[in-house]
Amino acid sequence: MYLKHISEIKEEVVDMGKKTTIQWLITDKNAGAQNYFMRRFVIKPGGEIFKHAHNWEHEIYCLQGEGIIGVGDKEYTMKKDMFVYVPPGVEHWYRNESDEDWVFLCIIPKPKQK
Amino acid sequence: MYLKHISEIKEEVVDMGKKTTIQWLITDKNAGAQNYFMRRFVIKPGGEIFKHAHNWEHEIYCLQGEGIIGVGDKEYTMKKDMFVYVPPGVEHWYRNESDEDWVFLCIIPKPKQK
Repeated sequence: MYLKHISEIKEEVVDMGKKTTIQWLITDKNAGAQNYFMRRFVIKPGGEIFKHAHNWEHEIYCLQGEGIIGVGDKEYTMKKDMFVYVPPGVEHWYRNESDEDWVFLCIIPKPKQK
Repeated sequence: MYLKHISEIKEEVVDMGKKTTIQWLITDKNAGAQNYFMRRFVIKPGGEIFKHAHNWEHEIYCLQGEGIIGVGDKEYTMKKDMFVYVPPGVEHWYRNESDEDWVFLCIIPKPKQK
Protein backbone atom coordinates (compact mmCIF):
# COMPACT_ATOMS: atom_id res chain seq x y z
CA MET A 1 0.00 0.00 0.00
CA TYR A 2 1.55 3.27 -1.16
CA LEU A 3 0.19 6.02 1.14
CA LYS A 4 2.59 8.83 1.98
CA HIS A 5 2.83 12.39 3.26
CA ILE A 6 4.73 15.04 1.28
CA SER A 7 7.27 15.27 4.13
CA GLU A 8 8.43 11.74 3.21
CA ILE A 9 9.45 12.65 -0.34
CA LYS A 10 12.79 14.24 -1.17
CA GLU A 11 12.74 17.77 -2.61
CA GLU A 12 15.03 18.05 -5.63
CA VAL A 13 16.26 21.29 -7.16
CA VAL A 14 14.86 22.02 -10.63
CA ASP A 15 17.80 22.71 -12.93
CA MET A 16 15.83 24.50 -15.62
CA GLY A 17 14.70 27.24 -13.23
CA LYS A 18 15.52 29.26 -10.15
CA LYS A 19 14.45 28.78 -6.50
CA THR A 20 12.28 25.84 -7.50
CA THR A 21 12.00 22.29 -6.17
CA ILE A 22 10.20 19.18 -7.37
CA GLN A 23 8.97 16.11 -5.48
CA TRP A 24 8.07 12.98 -7.45
CA LEU A 25 5.08 11.86 -5.37
CA ILE A 26 3.72 8.99 -7.48
CA THR A 27 5.81 7.24 -10.15
CA ASP A 28 6.49 3.79 -11.55
CA LYS A 29 9.48 3.40 -9.24
CA ASN A 30 7.92 4.31 -5.91
CA ALA A 31 4.28 3.29 -6.42
CA GLY A 32 4.19 1.13 -9.54
CA ALA A 33 2.20 3.69 -11.51
CA GLN A 34 2.04 2.69 -15.17
CA ASN A 35 0.24 5.56 -16.92
CA TYR A 36 0.88 8.96 -15.32
CA PHE A 37 3.06 10.44 -12.59
CA MET A 38 2.22 13.03 -9.90
CA ARG A 39 4.78 15.70 -8.99
CA ARG A 40 4.66 18.63 -6.54
CA PHE A 41 6.48 21.87 -7.29
CA VAL A 42 7.40 24.69 -4.93
CA ILE A 43 8.52 27.95 -6.57
CA LYS A 44 9.81 30.37 -3.96
CA PRO A 45 9.35 34.16 -4.21
CA GLY A 46 11.49 35.39 -7.08
CA GLY A 47 11.76 31.88 -8.49
CA GLU A 48 10.85 30.63 -11.92
CA ILE A 49 10.91 27.76 -14.39
CA PHE A 50 12.28 28.86 -17.75
CA LYS A 51 10.32 28.69 -21.00
CA HIS A 52 10.33 25.22 -22.53
CA ALA A 53 8.19 22.81 -24.54
CA HIS A 54 7.89 19.03 -24.86
CA ASN A 55 5.58 16.57 -26.57
CA TRP A 56 3.53 15.68 -23.47
CA GLU A 57 0.81 17.50 -21.60
CA HIS A 58 0.53 18.90 -18.06
CA GLU A 59 -2.45 18.80 -15.73
CA ILE A 60 -1.72 21.31 -12.97
CA TYR A 61 -3.61 22.14 -9.76
CA CYS A 62 -2.58 25.08 -7.56
CA LEU A 63 -2.39 24.06 -3.89
CA GLN A 64 -1.07 27.26 -2.33
CA GLY A 65 0.05 30.78 -3.16
CA GLU A 66 -0.04 32.27 -6.62
CA GLY A 67 2.13 32.75 -9.66
CA ILE A 68 2.32 33.61 -13.31
CA ILE A 69 2.00 30.81 -15.84
CA GLY A 70 2.87 31.49 -19.44
CA VAL A 71 1.37 29.28 -22.14
CA GLY A 72 1.94 29.83 -25.85
CA ASP A 73 2.34 33.60 -26.10
CA LYS A 74 0.31 34.79 -23.10
CA GLU A 75 0.67 34.96 -19.32
CA TYR A 76 -2.02 34.19 -16.76
CA THR A 77 -2.27 34.45 -12.97
CA MET A 78 -2.86 31.16 -11.20
CA LYS A 79 -4.15 31.06 -7.62
CA LYS A 80 -5.16 28.43 -5.07
CA ASP A 81 -7.78 26.00 -6.37
CA MET A 82 -7.22 26.94 -9.99
CA PHE A 83 -6.15 24.30 -12.49
CA VAL A 84 -4.86 24.30 -16.02
CA TYR A 85 -4.35 21.96 -18.95
CA VAL A 86 -1.15 22.64 -20.93
CA PRO A 87 -1.36 20.74 -24.23
CA PRO A 88 1.61 18.83 -25.67
CA GLY A 89 4.03 20.85 -27.78
CA VAL A 90 3.11 24.30 -26.42
CA GLU A 91 5.76 26.52 -24.83
CA HIS A 92 5.16 27.28 -21.16
CA TRP A 93 6.92 28.89 -18.19
CA TYR A 94 6.29 29.82 -14.56
CA ARG A 95 7.29 32.80 -12.41
CA ASN A 96 6.55 33.63 -8.80
CA GLU A 97 6.32 37.40 -8.34
CA SER A 98 4.55 37.14 -4.97
CA ASP A 99 6.09 37.10 -1.51
CA GLU A 100 5.01 33.57 -0.58
CA ASP A 101 5.67 30.09 -1.93
CA TRP A 102 3.69 29.02 -4.98
CA VAL A 103 2.87 25.31 -4.71
CA PHE A 104 1.20 23.16 -7.35
CA LEU A 105 0.72 19.59 -8.45
CA CYS A 106 1.67 18.69 -12.03
CA ILE A 107 0.68 15.36 -13.54
CA ILE A 108 2.48 14.09 -16.64
CA PRO A 109 2.16 10.91 -18.70
CA LYS A 110 4.67 8.19 -17.90
CA PRO A 111 7.73 9.01 -20.03
CA LYS A 112 7.89 6.63 -22.99
CA GLN A 113 11.68 6.34 -22.90
CA LYS A 114 11.76 5.03 -19.33
CA MET B 1 -6.35 28.05 -22.99
CA TYR B 2 -8.08 25.94 -20.35
CA LEU B 3 -7.45 27.66 -16.99
CA LYS B 4 -10.30 27.51 -14.48
CA HIS B 5 -11.18 27.85 -10.80
CA ILE B 6 -13.06 25.10 -9.00
CA SER B 7 -16.05 27.45 -8.56
CA GLU B 8 -16.59 27.25 -12.34
CA ILE B 9 -17.12 23.49 -12.39
CA LYS B 10 -20.46 21.88 -11.59
CA GLU B 11 -20.62 19.67 -8.48
CA GLU B 12 -22.42 16.40 -9.24
CA VAL B 13 -23.79 14.01 -6.64
CA VAL B 14 -21.96 10.67 -6.49
CA ASP B 15 -24.56 7.92 -6.78
CA MET B 16 -22.43 5.15 -5.33
CA GLY B 17 -22.04 6.94 -2.01
CA LYS B 18 -23.60 9.33 0.49
CA LYS B 19 -23.07 13.08 1.00
CA THR B 20 -20.42 13.10 -1.70
CA THR B 21 -19.91 15.26 -4.79
CA ILE B 22 -17.56 15.07 -7.77
CA GLN B 23 -16.28 17.77 -10.11
CA TRP B 24 -14.68 16.75 -13.40
CA LEU B 25 -11.95 19.40 -13.56
CA ILE B 26 -9.92 18.22 -16.57
CA THR B 27 -11.31 15.79 -19.17
CA ASP B 28 -11.32 15.18 -22.91
CA LYS B 29 -14.58 17.11 -23.26
CA ASN B 30 -13.69 20.31 -21.39
CA ALA B 31 -9.91 20.52 -21.91
CA GLY B 32 -9.05 18.04 -24.67
CA ALA B 33 -7.11 15.77 -22.30
CA GLN B 34 -6.25 12.51 -24.04
CA ASN B 35 -4.57 10.38 -21.38
CA TYR B 36 -5.89 11.02 -17.84
CA PHE B 37 -8.64 13.03 -16.17
CA MET B 38 -8.57 15.12 -12.98
CA ARG B 39 -11.55 15.02 -10.61
CA ARG B 40 -12.19 16.71 -7.24
CA PHE B 41 -14.26 14.98 -4.57
CA VAL B 42 -15.90 16.46 -1.47
CA ILE B 43 -17.14 13.97 1.12
CA LYS B 44 -19.12 15.74 3.82
CA PRO B 45 -19.10 14.66 7.49
CA GLY B 46 -20.90 11.32 7.70
CA GLY B 47 -20.51 10.78 3.98
CA GLU B 48 -18.92 7.87 2.17
CA ILE B 49 -18.22 6.18 -1.14
CA PHE B 50 -19.16 2.51 -1.04
CA LYS B 51 -16.71 -0.34 -1.58
CA HIS B 52 -16.03 -0.99 -5.26
CA ALA B 53 -13.32 -2.09 -7.68
CA HIS B 54 -12.48 -1.45 -11.34
CA ASN B 55 -9.64 -2.22 -13.71
CA TRP B 56 -8.03 1.24 -13.57
CA GLU B 57 -5.89 2.95 -10.98
CA HIS B 58 -6.35 6.06 -8.82
CA GLU B 59 -3.80 8.71 -7.93
CA ILE B 60 -5.26 10.67 -5.03
CA TYR B 61 -4.03 13.81 -3.24
CA CYS B 62 -5.76 15.10 -0.08
CA LEU B 63 -6.41 18.85 -0.30
CA GLN B 64 -8.35 19.42 2.90
CA GLY B 65 -9.76 17.65 5.94
CA GLU B 66 -9.31 13.97 6.64
CA GLY B 67 -11.01 10.66 6.09
CA ILE B 68 -10.72 6.89 6.10
CA ILE B 69 -9.64 5.18 2.90
CA GLY B 70 -10.01 1.43 2.62
CA VAL B 71 -7.84 -0.45 0.16
CA GLY B 72 -7.87 -4.22 -0.20
CA ASP B 73 -8.70 -5.42 3.31
CA LYS B 74 -7.34 -2.54 5.43
CA GLU B 75 -8.31 1.00 6.37
CA TYR B 76 -5.99 3.99 6.60
CA THR B 77 -6.38 7.62 7.72
CA MET B 78 -5.69 10.18 5.02
CA LYS B 79 -4.97 13.80 5.92
CA LYS B 80 -4.06 17.02 4.10
CA ASP B 81 -0.98 16.68 1.89
CA MET B 82 -1.07 12.89 1.92
CA PHE B 83 -1.40 10.98 -1.34
CA VAL B 84 -2.09 7.43 -2.33
CA TYR B 85 -1.83 5.10 -5.29
CA VAL B 86 -4.72 2.64 -5.57
CA PRO B 87 -3.77 -0.09 -8.09
CA PRO B 88 -6.19 -1.38 -10.72
CA GLY B 89 -8.48 -4.20 -9.60
CA VAL B 90 -8.23 -3.59 -5.85
CA GLU B 91 -11.35 -2.94 -3.78
CA HIS B 92 -11.45 0.51 -2.17
CA TRP B 93 -13.84 2.74 -0.25
CA TYR B 94 -13.95 6.11 1.54
CA ARG B 95 -15.62 7.34 4.73
CA ASN B 96 -15.59 10.72 6.43
CA GLU B 97 -15.91 10.29 10.20
CA SER B 98 -14.67 13.81 10.94
CA ASP B 99 -16.73 16.98 11.42
CA GLU B 100 -15.37 18.84 8.40
CA ASP B 101 -15.37 18.29 4.65
CA TRP B 102 -12.82 15.85 3.26
CA VAL B 103 -11.59 17.10 -0.12
CA PHE B 104 -9.25 15.28 -2.50
CA LEU B 105 -8.15 15.14 -6.10
CA CYS B 106 -8.40 11.79 -7.89
CA ILE B 107 -6.76 11.24 -11.26
CA ILE B 108 -7.89 8.34 -13.46
CA PRO B 109 -6.85 7.15 -16.92
CA LYS B 110 -9.10 8.25 -19.75
CA PRO B 111 -11.84 5.61 -19.91
CA LYS B 112 -11.24 3.31 -22.88
CA GLN B 113 -14.92 2.95 -23.75
CA LYS B 114 -15.46 6.70 -24.18
